[in-house]
Amino acid sequence: MRNINEDTITQAVLAAMAGCKQPRLRTIMVSLVQHLHSFAREVELTEDEWFKAIQFLTAVGHITDDVRQEFILLSDVLGLSTLVTAQNNAKPAGCTEATVFGPFFVENAPEYALGADIANGAGGEPCHVSGQVRSLDGRPLAGVRMDVWQSDEDGHYDVQRPPTETQPHTHRARGRLRTDAQGRYHFRSILAQPYPIPHDGPVGKMLEALGRHPWRPAHLHFMLEAAGHERLITHVFRDQDRYLDSDAVFGVRSTLIAPWVRHEAGPAPDGSVQERPFWTLHYDFVLNPQATTVAASGTDTAGARA
Amino acid sequence: MRNINEDTITQAVLAAMAGCKQPRLRTIMVSLVQHLHSFAREVELTEDEWFKAIQFLTAVGHITDDVRQEFILLSDVLGLSTLVTAQNNAKPAGCTEATVFGPFFVENAPEYALGADIANGAGGEPCHVSGQVRSLDGRPLAGVRMDVWQSDEDGHYDVQRPPTETQPHTHRARGRLRTDAQGRYHFRSILAQPYPIPHDGPVGKMLEALGRHPWRPAHLHFMLEAAGHERLITHVFRDQDRYLDSDAVFGVRSTLIAPWVRHEAGPAPDGSVQERPFWTLHYDFVLNPQATTVAASGTDTAGARA
Repeated sequence: MRNINEDTITQAVLAAMAGCKQPRLRTIMVSLVQHLHSFAREVELTEDEWFKAIQFLTAVGHITDDVRQEFILLSDVLGLSTLVTAQNNAKPAGCTEATVFGPFFVENAPEYALGADIANGAGGEPCHVSGQVRSLDGRPLAGVRMDVWQSDEDGHYDVQRPPTETQPHTHRARGRLRTDAQGRYHFRSILAQPYPIPHDGPVGKMLEALGRHPWRPAHLHFMLEAAGHERLITHVFRDQDRYLDSDAVFGVRSTLIAPWVRHEAGPAPDGSVQERPFWTLHYDFVLNPQATTVAASGTDTAGARA
Repeated sequence: MRNINEDTITQAVLAAMAGCKQPRLRTIMVSLVQHLHSFAREVELTEDEWFKAIQFLTAVGHITDDVRQEFILLSDVLGLSTLVTAQNNAKPAGCTEATVFGPFFVENAPEYALGADIANGAGGEPCHVSGQVRSLDGRPLAGVRMDVWQSDEDGHYDVQRPPTETQPHTHRARGRLRTDAQGRYHFRSILAQPYPIPHDGPVGKMLEALGRHPWRPAHLHFMLEAAGHERLITHVFRDQDRYLDSDAVFGVRSTLIAPWVRHEAGPAPDGSVQERPFWTLHYDFVLNPQATTVAASGTDTAGARA
């Protein structure tokens, strides 16, 4: 500790943590310090580059507030969120895959009866969504709680629109439903559109410097909770979207891409007659019957992030 | 990109940066992403731990402002600052070693004539500091600009004390001098004391969880600039300090530890007669005649951090 140099600093930092009483924290910090130092050595980080990194992290911290989380965005665009999601949500073959949660979930969205229009005024071409939720053995799951949320025709989520005097924080294109006795669900909403992640801050500038765009392919978010099953947080992506091969947050799984079919005006699946063109999407979910502690820790996270 | 999982995510992120037009940025980000992902895999980071990390970084960002830089503090306590300083300031044997800059430097400190008392009211036992600045070949260096800054008897720097109506932002125990024709310097100040780094924020909480204390051994800061030589940023540490073996920011070099000698009241080196006990410190500096681009980038950094 009295003669620390480029070669001995890492061991000195690790030795300083020898008294840590939390084994898991120590394991994490030992690995973090080793990788952080290896990175700085590998690229021969200069003092000027180090200071630019300090300034960047400061800007990320300063733009982050109750409704904007730039650190999560940073984790998303660096693929860390997808890695952590993937390594904590391995499922048996046949189960619907999970993907990133994203920052636009809201706790306690309005509950709707099956068949309702959850758009609640959000702009976009009508879209009728239906499917079934099953367990891995094929048994239909009744009463599954299903949260749905999505962007509108401008690529905005309701929470991104500032409240006005006449429309304070209205839930739009967002809702909660329950599957019927046969595990089936159906609802009406609007066609989801691709959208850029918030890119007017430091993460947006970083993407630009890296030659990357901020767009995400169009998708619906789903969160499914069924008794005796692992909670599933996932998306369903719109096939043929131009950004399926370059999702800014690396969330696409081929099994989560589904055909969203366009129809001319006329009879719709819910028995109504549509006066303008509309879309349909049919997607079945298969839940993992092994409830794990991962799901429990995920619950806390969802609550805190909402 | 359509079927990303735990095993393929890293390559997908690297591929997304293929269009980056700045080769150095790309090199840095490729290494950063690989190490970040290796870390998350190695410790099998959970979603809950990931979210705690997001919350920690958010807190670090929110406590950081114009006068407090918690990200630099974080870099310091993780040994990254020392590593970056060391790998950018390798010097020929015989030169005085560099160490961390720290957050308490101030641009344009008051200039003093040799022999002056730079304490300017800061509390502490008097300390007379002297020495010589030479080039690597032994030649004394005249007119070297020398910035000195230090803590007072309470372990505080002047910038940590809130300004009052009668004493707005007074420079105390801080000043700028120039060596004489024989490369010599001497000034009077106060005895530096050990102090804890600011530990009432997230970095302090982290240190506590890691079983580490926040203290730094007593030291004087020096920044020396001489024509034709690499700028030197370093400390001189007080021998026998209890924290020399556990500096919270890993800044100690054995060659930078010097005897600070206590004297009873009586004649001092500057010819004055002291009415109370006083200290003396004698330390010679040797500058590296190879001016490099590292020094230039360091100048920008110092300016921006001040």
